[in-house]
Amino acid sequence: MDCSIARTLEVVGDWWTLLIVRDVSLGFGRFDDFQRRLGIATNVLAARLDWLVEHGVLERHPYQDNPPRHEYRLTDKGVDLGSVLFALRTWGDKWEADAGPRTVTVHDTCGHRTDLRLVCTHCGERLRRGETHVEAAPAGAEPAWVGEGRPAG
Amino acid sequence: MDCSIARTLEVVGDWWTLLIVRDVSLGFGRFDDFQRRLGIATNVLAARLDWLVEHGVLERHPYQDNPPRHEYRLTDKGVDLGSVLFALRTWGDKWEADAGPRTVTVHDTCGHRTDLRLVCTHCGERLRRGETHVEAAPAGAEPAWVGEGRPAG
Repeated sequence: MDCSIARTLEVVGDWWTLLIVRDVSLGFGRFDDFQRRLGIATNVLAARLDWLVEHGVLERHPYQDNPPRHEYRLTDKGVDLGSVLFALRTWGDKWEADAGPRTVTVHDTCGHRTDLRLVCTHCGERLRRGETHVEAAPAGAEPAWVGEGRPAG
Repeated sequence: MDCSIARTLEVVGDWWTLLIVRDVSLGFGRFDDFQRRLGIATNVLAARLDWLVEHGVLERHPYQDNPPRHEYRLTDKGVDLGSVLFALRTWGDKWEADAGPRTVTVHDTCGHRTDLRLVCTHCGERLRRGETHVEAAPAGAEPAWVGEGRPAG
């Protein structure tokens, strides 16, 4: 399907896949971590990890030689899923968490809590709910990632 | 699972579900639209639409009496998924769209294209990839949605 949302969902559009990415972003990167935290069957977990490595979202790094063990880390492509996780978390905090948020996002540079706030890259104003629409890109449109790191290759 | 990402995925963590929300946000709201655009089996489609109505993401609005027909529209809760779709679209444009983006997001207020840009709600600076972390919320933390509309009830 010729749509970037559909393509993204092809890679991460699975409950377990995004929860694995979430766990790695929280600092858990070992097979046992995922199994304990997600309660996922080992064969399903192994398949999802292979998938994420194959699609360049995670990388394996050895942390022990004998027996050989590795942990999973996010690639740049994986770290870029942070905005997807942030948006999912914010929506859940707002609409599905009666007891209030269990976590907060902290901006490392200033040291304070930040919530999800989108601003227009043209005028700088805050983008509020329902104030944008999507339309066909003009021919030769630059991708959105200019200025924030190009994918390799 | 006591995590807002997991809760969000419970509601929308299905390939078809998010693509239906995408289509409604693009202005397609009828059963035939979804079937044509998504190529989805009618029983699966009907079940997903019921699910989204039941969970308050979509509402049914009659548009014809004889025979009775209705179309689907986003609720406020559904419109709030816009940031999730925007993040998914941006990631796909960057990492999975070799031919460049097929769509652009336009800020209705200023009339120009905008890309996904997050800023810190405390210091106002741009949040760049990997410059945030997630930690346990302090007791009694306010949810992130203060100022952008409270869920009813």
